[in-house]
Amino acid sequence: MAKDIEVASHEYGAKDYQDPPPANLFDAEELTKWSFYRAIIAEFIATLLFLYITVLTVIGYKSQTDPIHSTDQCGGVGILGIAWAFGGMIFVLVYCTAGISGGHINPAVTFGLFLARKVTLPRAIMYMLAQCLGAVCGCGLVKAFQKTYYKNYGGGANELADGYNKGTGLGAEIIGTFVLVYTVLAPLPIGFAVFMVHLATIPITGTGINPARSFGAAVIYGKEKAWDDQWIFWVGPMIGAAIAAVYHQFVLRAGAVKAFGSSRSNA
Amino acid sequence: MAKDIEVASHEYGAKDYQDPPPANLFDAEELTKWSFYRAIIAEFIATLLFLYITVLTVIGYKSQTDPIHSTDQCGGVGILGIAWAFGGMIFVLVYCTAGISGGHINPAVTFGLFLARKVTLPRAIMYMLAQCLGAVCGCGLVKAFQKTYYKNYGGGANELADGYNKGTGLGAEIIGTFVLVYTVLAPLPIGFAVFMVHLATIPITGTGINPARSFGAAVIYGKEKAWDDQWIFWVGPMIGAAIAAVYHQFVLRAGAVKAFGSSRSNA
Amino acid sequence: MAKDIEVASHEYGAKDYQDPPPANLFDAEELTKWSFYRAIIAEFIATLLFLYITVLTVIGYKSQTDPIHSTDQCGGVGILGIAWAFGGMIFVLVYCTAGISGGHINPAVTFGLFLARKVTLPRAIMYMLAQCLGAVCGCGLVKAFQKTYYKNYGGGANELADGYNKGTGLGAEIIGTFVLVYTVLAPLPIGFAVFMVHLATIPITGTGINPARSFGAAVIYGKEKAWDDQWIFWVGPMIGAAIAAVYHQFVLRAGAVKAFGSSRSNA
Amino acid sequence: MAKDIEVASHEYGAKDYQDPPPANLFDAEELTKWSFYRAIIAEFIATLLFLYITVLTVIGYKSQTDPIHSTDQCGGVGILGIAWAFGGMIFVLVYCTAGISGGHINPAVTFGLFLARKVTLPRAIMYMLAQCLGAVCGCGLVKAFQKTYYKNYGGGANELADGYNKGTGLGAEIIGTFVLVYTVLAPLPIGFAVFMVHLATIPITGTGINPARSFGAAVIYGKEKAWDDQWIFWVGPMIGAAIAAVYHQFVLRAGAVKAFGSSRSNA
Repeated sequence: MAKDIEVASHEYGAKDYQDPPPANLFDAEELTKWSFYRAIIAEFIATLLFLYITVLTVIGYKSQTDPIHSTDQCGGVGILGIAWAFGGMIFVLVYCTAGISGGHINPAVTFGLFLARKVTLPRAIMYMLAQCLGAVCGCGLVKAFQKTYYKNYGGGANELADGYNKGTGLGAEIIGTFVLVYTVLAPLPIGFAVFMVHLATIPITGTGINPARSFGAAVIYGKEKAWDDQWIFWVGPMIGAAIAAVYHQFVLRAGAVKAFGSSRSNA
Repeated sequence: MAKDIEVASHEYGAKDYQDPPPANLFDAEELTKWSFYRAIIAEFIATLLFLYITVLTVIGYKSQTDPIHSTDQCGGVGILGIAWAFGGMIFVLVYCTAGISGGHINPAVTFGLFLARKVTLPRAIMYMLAQCLGAVCGCGLVKAFQKTYYKNYGGGANELADGYNKGTGLGAEIIGTFVLVYTVLAPLPIGFAVFMVHLATIPITGTGINPARSFGAAVIYGKEKAWDDQWIFWVGPMIGAAIAAVYHQFVLRAGAVKAFGSSRSNA
Repeated sequence: MAKDIEVASHEYGAKDYQDPPPANLFDAEELTKWSFYRAIIAEFIATLLFLYITVLTVIGYKSQTDPIHSTDQCGGVGILGIAWAFGGMIFVLVYCTAGISGGHINPAVTFGLFLARKVTLPRAIMYMLAQCLGAVCGCGLVKAFQKTYYKNYGGGANELADGYNKGTGLGAEIIGTFVLVYTVLAPLPIGFAVFMVHLATIPITGTGINPARSFGAAVIYGKEKAWDDQWIFWVGPMIGAAIAAVYHQFVLRAGAVKAFGSSRSNA
Repeated sequence: MAKDIEVASHEYGAKDYQDPPPANLFDAEELTKWSFYRAIIAEFIATLLFLYITVLTVIGYKSQTDPIHSTDQCGGVGILGIAWAFGGMIFVLVYCTAGISGGHINPAVTFGLFLARKVTLPRAIMYMLAQCLGAVCGCGLVKAFQKTYYKNYGGGANELADGYNKGTGLGAEIIGTFVLVYTVLAPLPIGFAVFMVHLATIPITGTGINPARSFGAAVIYGKEKAWDDQWIFWVGPMIGAAIAAVYHQFVLRAGAVKAFGSSRSNA
């Protein structure tokens, strides 16, 4: 998809695309190839590294600015640093795994690409499992390295902030994930998209837009509030990804041309 | 334009360009194509997302650093974070919509490209309407999500700061928009340009350089001061864009060669 | 040069380059071409915009964090924001003017490229004049827009900080400019180089590494200290640029191969 | 490697690679070429500049925010600025030296590429020596320029922070270096990887992930604690780099295909 967009950006306006044929729902041959399993391993490792770096940044920031341990309240990386950690890791990891697994690192992205028929059902399921497991392991490492601070500082878990109702949290997750999947698979733009969504919605939900990230943090953190709000961080991203998939299909891409009965034109 | 500049950057100096023929003022055929309406939808959605993310960042920052609600005055994303939100979103949105609508997301950019005869009049008008409507909807979402804080923290509206006269505000908007249109349509440079103009002029006007952004925030915020200063955020950007269009035509590009009576040379 | 480096980065190690023939010291024909004058205008405008945005950011930051005018000492863009303003503008301006003038925007860069015989002497002199004049105009605009604060907050002028001797200031300028010219003319790396040199040397000299920038600020600011230290911001950058030109010629590029009597080999 | 990954990112999934033949352990001819010595000089200069800019940023930050010398605790570049200094310099330096030496600038990277049989043993040894010597010289310059502050502010040396045991420090270095070598040799991603690892692990070890950086700072700083923990900053990065080399060979790349007895397929 990244490639198509990139090509498109060099042509003004009306060009429509020659898509690859849609993926089958099942593809028995796929399951016999090493490249399938390699992709699952790559998703697992990438999501592990994603949670390790980002949650470690969150915990480190909170310990540095805690008045109990530090006299320097401005001495941490700041919320800006946290937003960079999330966005920058997505850039690096999508860049490095795009050629191996497609670089999803997020069940909502996998779901959106499954809806757009870019991946088969077994691949989608295995990716999501690998992502969730990777996220749990990444958070587990942070807890092991930051024993003292992990629980005190919220474990990087996503929770609805005080003063916001569930509808707002859900809406923020839907739109945030829409922005993310809207830019899918071009490493630098998707990294920046993740960065900006964090700038905007950290005060509301801590920013999920990635169910594996919210799930991994909740499993290792284990407090009730994180589990009570957990559904928001699955339902919101899935809806956002689905809307983005539809938007790609019917507005940004050629699908709509057919829907309106026009023939393909290379203007 | 981005493409031309990119090519040009690989050649030293004297090469002049083979421009596409200028757009007609009207183009009846354009109105019958789905790609025209798709472009308008893309401008609407992109401007909506632009205002949603950026104004949410502004409001969130102000609530986090308000001494009434927070003991941590360094606990927000900072003005640097706000500048990144504006610049980064422009990067992402221009990248994603360049192939669909040209990725204007700003009536001043559309106006500049209309003057440079890159878009027809109906397209220019429809883009500007879509951009203003998108901006209103984006700010509306922020107000809905941040009910408590929206009015208190100024609604992200552009207003002339105390101690600056209208001439300064107008000048800052003209030069800021000149920088923006000067770099038009190459996603990363335009994103950085927007980022830097915010760093420089947030203390003066909050930084408009995009009439849709100023209009959407004023409509939803609705206070008198934002409306009193509104003309600055239309007149300034339009003048800046017009100067940039002239500068492109007569200095950066081949136009001037003809004006001086030379023939085109590919040195 | 950017192009060569980019190509080179795809090949491992030993490839040597086919350079364009060195520029003549004088080139009478050049003076009859519009592209020569266009390049001078482009250097003037780019340096004007560079100083306008960056010095405005410096002044705005200082007014925001001044305890007299603000209760929020963390409420400015920070030194990080100032460093981004300098680095980001260089990225944008080199990107936009590379195809017109080579995108120097800095007399030290022009000097380094003159030594490397990439530009003629008349071009080098005219560029430097245009850059200095642009810098004066850019700072003049900031003074006009920020009347109240400009003098109080040091006018963005480069001065040696208390507690550092002149040798340290000179050394910091030499190495800083070396880093800059080492990466010349590839927009993103040179922008990042400028950003990082500011992070490192703002505490020592405010970071010059661009004589036009130091000259323009000194002219408009006009206080004695800025003029007393001015020579550091001309001598340092010129030495740094000269060393970088030699390093490019004898280490990074093919020159040295000849010096050691080897024939050109395309391994 | 960068090139392969870049190509791969345009193809979805199953493509396996045509690797260049592995480097010999020794290559007598290499030692007779200027390009070999040029590469060593380039590694020396790049590592010198890397330490100079980054340690100067660390020292400057600490002097600016020290309550003894400054009333403005927010007046420094912040930990975010320090993380940018490290990440940004790696981006610039890898970009500029990739075509000359491969752009390692880090003994752990050289070690990883030696294990992957991309460089010969003499080249690996000479690179590591040049990197360590460059790091010592870079820190020496900082000490000369910042006489007053250098010792007081820790000399930029890597030490295990209070409250973390050696196992945690070692683990943090292993994973951090894994992230780094995982993205090796594509300038922008590796720069971002270094940036993010600093955001995450500055609170634990100050972030080494580069034995030359830790060694150079320890030599010039010279205090006992920096030497006591020094082994962590050699053993951790070497293990991390080795794991990354194996991961590249057996998961990301074609190696595993052979291990599983499949033939190479270009799907």
